[in-house]
Amino acid sequence: MVTCHCSVSVDGYSAGPNQSPDNPLGERGEELHTWFHGEGPPSEADAKVAERILAGYGAYVMGRKMFGGGPGDWDLSWRGWWGDTPPYRNPVFVLTHNERPPLEMAGGTTFHFVTGGVEDALSQARAAAGEKNVSVAGGASTVQQFIAAGLLDELHLHIAPVVLGSGERLLENLGNPAFEQIEVIESPKATHVFYRVGR
Amino acid sequence: MVTCHCSVSVDGYSAGPNQSPDNPLGERGEELHTWFHGEGPPSEADAKVAERILAGYGAYVMGRKMFGGGPGDWDLSWRGWWGDTPPYRNPVFVLTHNERPPLEMAGGTTFHFVTGGVEDALSQARAAAGEKNVSVAGGASTVQQFIAAGLLDELHLHIAPVVLGSGERLLENLGNPAFEQIEVIESPKATHVFYRVGR
Repeated sequence: MVTCHCSVSVDGYSAGPNQSPDNPLGERGEELHTWFHGEGPPSEADAKVAERILAGYGAYVMGRKMFGGGPGDWDLSWRGWWGDTPPYRNPVFVLTHNERPPLEMAGGTTFHFVTGGVEDALSQARAAAGEKNVSVAGGASTVQQFIAAGLLDELHLHIAPVVLGSGERLLENLGNPAFEQIEVIESPKATHVFYRVGR
Repeated sequence: MVTCHCSVSVDGYSAGPNQSPDNPLGERGEELHTWFHGEGPPSEADAKVAERILAGYGAYVMGRKMFGGGPGDWDLSWRGWWGDTPPYRNPVFVLTHNERPPLEMAGGTTFHFVTGGVEDALSQARAAAGEKNVSVAGGASTVQQFIAAGLLDELHLHIAPVVLGSGERLLENLGNPAFEQIEVIESPKATHVFYRVGR
């Protein structure tokens, strides 16, 4: 199964304005993720949702900007902005137009650079994941391409009670997909809505 | 208290594209309201939410377009597009730039036309509502003006599992309001999220 989980504001932004290498989530973007790693222990509901996110994926697909956009990202000394030990701990397939050899990080994450578009990336991710699920990690443009191509099975939205007003909008350029609401989980800090995405 | 309840698509539209007097909700806009008046009996959750909407309001505020936009709406023979017996059954204050005498309809609804903007409309609606709540009925632009002016106490979103792709977006031009999530109700046909709106 191919799934995507994404935190969004009430007004539909998955990142705030003025994203940069120093501030990849954009202004106030971190407020979207308070349910996941805010101060204090998570609520039972948030912990349950986070557990689903952290378990079960065998491979990830992400966009070039999410790997680490900005000037110099194809300088081979640039290792993205996820630090030495990225949280993925699995193969990550990065959509790009530039060939680059795989980049092995600490902790089990290896970034593979794919130039054949979303279908190519998904095919490689599926092979790497084996029996496990593939997660589309983002950003917005990558999620949109997966939905528009009919390649995403489930979208898990974490709607934070935050209005950003501008930034990167998650749900646009989707074509005409059919959404089916599977499950809703209320937590004190977000509304978690799970959708099945039809073609 | 001043509240607004609004059905929206997952991608944030409160009406589909190409709204017209013959199709005030726009293309596919009626799919947003399936939870409220779709086929078959409503679920227990939807019935509970609908009951809150139908009870307790003493007055409404709406925009000129929602009263019945399009050519000829200021012809005094034009009585809006809500039919002879509008569902409001209370005073409705219509934001407009054109003076017009009140329009009394069957069933208890009287449309009052207000030229002094949202604060004037709210002041008149509060006086008419007495102890009861005022509902901001829409459309999107009117809701936005209320939130931006800090006049809305609660926003109740009914998120339908529908992607419209274009149309009238509800949550934009809001200024910088603080949203607090009060309650979430899952129904088979929508996710109902209740927010307190701060200034």
